[in-house]
Amino acid sequence: MVDLDKIISLCKRRGFIFQGSEQYGGLQGTWDYGPLGVELKNNVKKAWWRYNVYERDDMEGLDSSILLNRLVLKYSGHEATFSDPMVDCRKCKKRFRADQVDPNEKCSEGGTHDLTEPRPFNLMFKTTYGPVADENNIAYLRPETAQGIFINFKNVLDSTNRKLPFGIAQIGKSFRNEITPKNFIFRVREFEQMEIEYFVMPGEDEKCHQEWVEARKNWYIRYGIKPENIRLYNQKKEELAHYAKATVDIHYRFFPERPEEDKQFDEVEGVANRTDFDLSCHTKGGKLVLADGREFPNTDATNKLTYFDPKTNQHLLPYVIEPSCGVDRATLAFMMDAYCEEEVKEGDTRVVLKLHPALAPIKVAVLPLKKNNEDIKSTAHKIKKILLGSGFRTVYDDTAGIGKLYRRQDEVGTPFCVTVDFQTLEDNTVTVRDRDTMAQERVAIDDLKEYIAKRIGHND
Amino acid sequence: MVDLDKIISLCKRRGFIFQGSEQYGGLQGTWDYGPLGVELKNNVKKAWWRYNVYERDDMEGLDSSILLNRLVLKYSGHEATFSDPMVDCRKCKKRFRADQVDPNEKCSEGGTHDLTEPRPFNLMFKTTYGPVADENNIAYLRPETAQGIFINFKNVLDSTNRKLPFGIAQIGKSFRNEITPKNFIFRVREFEQMEIEYFVMPGEDEKCHQEWVEARKNWYIRYGIKPENIRLYNQKKEELAHYAKATVDIHYRFFPERPEEDKQFDEVEGVANRTDFDLSCHTKGGKLVLADGREFPNTDATNKLTYFDPKTNQHLLPYVIEPSCGVDRATLAFMMDAYCEEEVKEGDTRVVLKLHPALAPIKVAVLPLKKNNEDIKSTAHKIKKILLGSGFRTVYDDTAGIGKLYRRQDEVGTPFCVTVDFQTLEDNTVTVRDRDTMAQERVAIDDLKEYIAKRIGHND
Repeated sequence: MVDLDKIISLCKRRGFIFQGSEQYGGLQGTWDYGPLGVELKNNVKKAWWRYNVYERDDMEGLDSSILLNRLVLKYSGHEATFSDPMVDCRKCKKRFRADQVDPNEKCSEGGTHDLTEPRPFNLMFKTTYGPVADENNIAYLRPETAQGIFINFKNVLDSTNRKLPFGIAQIGKSFRNEITPKNFIFRVREFEQMEIEYFVMPGEDEKCHQEWVEARKNWYIRYGIKPENIRLYNQKKEELAHYAKATVDIHYRFFPERPEEDKQFDEVEGVANRTDFDLSCHTKGGKLVLADGREFPNTDATNKLTYFDPKTNQHLLPYVIEPSCGVDRATLAFMMDAYCEEEVKEGDTRVVLKLHPALAPIKVAVLPLKKNNEDIKSTAHKIKKILLGSGFRTVYDDTAGIGKLYRRQDEVGTPFCVTVDFQTLEDNTVTVRDRDTMAQERVAIDDLKEYIAKRIGHND
Repeated sequence: MVDLDKIISLCKRRGFIFQGSEQYGGLQGTWDYGPLGVELKNNVKKAWWRYNVYERDDMEGLDSSILLNRLVLKYSGHEATFSDPMVDCRKCKKRFRADQVDPNEKCSEGGTHDLTEPRPFNLMFKTTYGPVADENNIAYLRPETAQGIFINFKNVLDSTNRKLPFGIAQIGKSFRNEITPKNFIFRVREFEQMEIEYFVMPGEDEKCHQEWVEARKNWYIRYGIKPENIRLYNQKKEELAHYAKATVDIHYRFFPERPEEDKQFDEVEGVANRTDFDLSCHTKGGKLVLADGREFPNTDATNKLTYFDPKTNQHLLPYVIEPSCGVDRATLAFMMDAYCEEEVKEGDTRVVLKLHPALAPIKVAVLPLKKNNEDIKSTAHKIKKILLGSGFRTVYDDTAGIGKLYRRQDEVGTPFCVTVDFQTLEDNTVTVRDRDTMAQERVAIDDLKEYIAKRIGHND
């Protein structure tokens, strides 16, 4: 399997991903998706939305704000507990994560560090709104999209007349002021999430949890991840958040170079049974209960976030199953899993990204066999124009010999290369080359659009 | 034409758009898109991407970070000049926009306000990153997506080998701390933009500018805006930003209720000829020149943002044409333009959103003619299952009589209602009702998927 370094180098060279604010030395923990990266990431998001919203009968979508009233994060528990323990050195004034600094480490001011007791450091990005920047006007950048779903539970329920069970899906940016962003797009400060909050009757939550774990695992496999590179990890009792009844993490083999197999895997998604914790926190008259027993009665919420069960004539707080996936991590997993180096013949290796066609950034490359033949070139341009109307990315390239052009497309995962050659000028057919098998098939230009659409399977 | 109030009420009732953080009294200037709103907005974004990236031969995409190194905003000029003039009252300590406060206004502390001289108030949202919240760790939420494009100009150029002219397109959230957010999603603090920076040889900029104005206007018309509700507005010399050679705003009739026709129109998009201002600011060794003549030589940038012209063997700074569109405003314009109240027969009016099928949140509603007939209901469910795989939103509804069900779908712009009736049970056909003409056609269930796909035109 490929390691992260090779992927990083491919990403930079071919324009998948660049460092954020690179022109000014970067802003640590931010990444910019380039021309191929934005297509790949958008395709991952579309595949998720299609599978989780369009193909199911029980889901609604949402797109809530990044900026949140601080009360949302007060009652969610984030203000009080979304923090890492930090220590300061009294001599050099530097700050460290308590679990990452060796007290015997050398201080730049001489001797060893003189460290304070650990203090909680909140990981939320804070800002202020309105003309006066003071304590009364604090807003947070959301640390997860989930809270936007919980606080809109009643709005969605009332405008759709849904009955339990049903879910709300959301894709969007979230922000965490990580102390040590690392491993490329794996741990970052600005990232994107695809989250579902699925609301069920208490008592039906455990079965539903299992079903979501299966459904989410199957999504990765459907879009090309090899089953042996995915693992389900049941969080142990002592690892669970205090409000969670059970959490199953979906792990991907992000670090294949590590000798111990267990350490090769890390989280791409978590599927949690959060009970009624979140709706209890945010409902009018409800309360937040922290792990240490502290209670915050909710005196600010405007609506009851309850569901009226017509069978029992009772108002109740539904339980919540939360499949929460990182877009950037999923994108990285799809890239890593698709990456192959294949010996084509002795001494000749090709790099190929065997991405699912729905995920591939470019669907079709139109290539003239000879770049110095004007008829071939103009026919290739004409074919590209025909395909431009298909609603996906098509490119034209004549800047190298055909062998090199194929390699360029293989490396970025383009499933189909359409080659225009001398025969095309005679009989209006082209060759369509399959990325994975390298087999070529002759197709009439008139049939090309339909042929490609069929081969892609579904054209988003 | 419909006014904003009716649209706001429809949006809330049917789940298009809710107030942000509403559960806690709101966060002014933020809005959450509900189940139908997220589909509509996503469709607007897809239609833009399709038209401006996929259907053209000269465009690349990008998705850059929201959090920016403050140096980006220093050299763009935003730190120095992206501000409104504000005054403080020395008595009541309140702050006002200088052009919006009457100095003779009553102060809550007695008498009239005792106002300070106007001072610039920067409209960018500021935050800090890393463990220490001080001046050295300031980052801004981007006030426009454009800057992320400029600073990545070289990255995109190098990874794609583009020649001039070519453009970079980006869709994403931007943030401005507006003093007075107003008019629903028209003036907000958190919003989404669709921006293009199109790079051309100096000298070709004026022609290119005109072409983009036409192309952008045509996009609105292609997706359903009536030409009489769009106006082009050439900014006068005294209105132009100091770096702009020319700017044409695209105005939409957002305020039809205003008596003077000129005041009914407001900006949905601006198309500016920005010359080489932006690349000059951000290029290594370049400089920012403000309107007042102040100069900031760029001593921090890491790369030259120049283009090598193979014809003249010269390195040059391309000119930039910028079509910059607000997603929220465009979405609002498409909704307003689609809204109709039609008298179906005497005394019976229907509300119908005549959205372009590509923009419609729900493409197909499957409706059983009789909700108490199990065969009809189960057939309707089966048909919905068939359509679920199409990659767009399909719904099933049996919670009212057929007339009311049609009205519900008309109001949210669903182009096709598929009705299952007694004849369906005999011959496996359904009626497909057209939203706009209300004409019904019988279609075999086996042909339905293809029939709908064809009628929608393109299925994104």
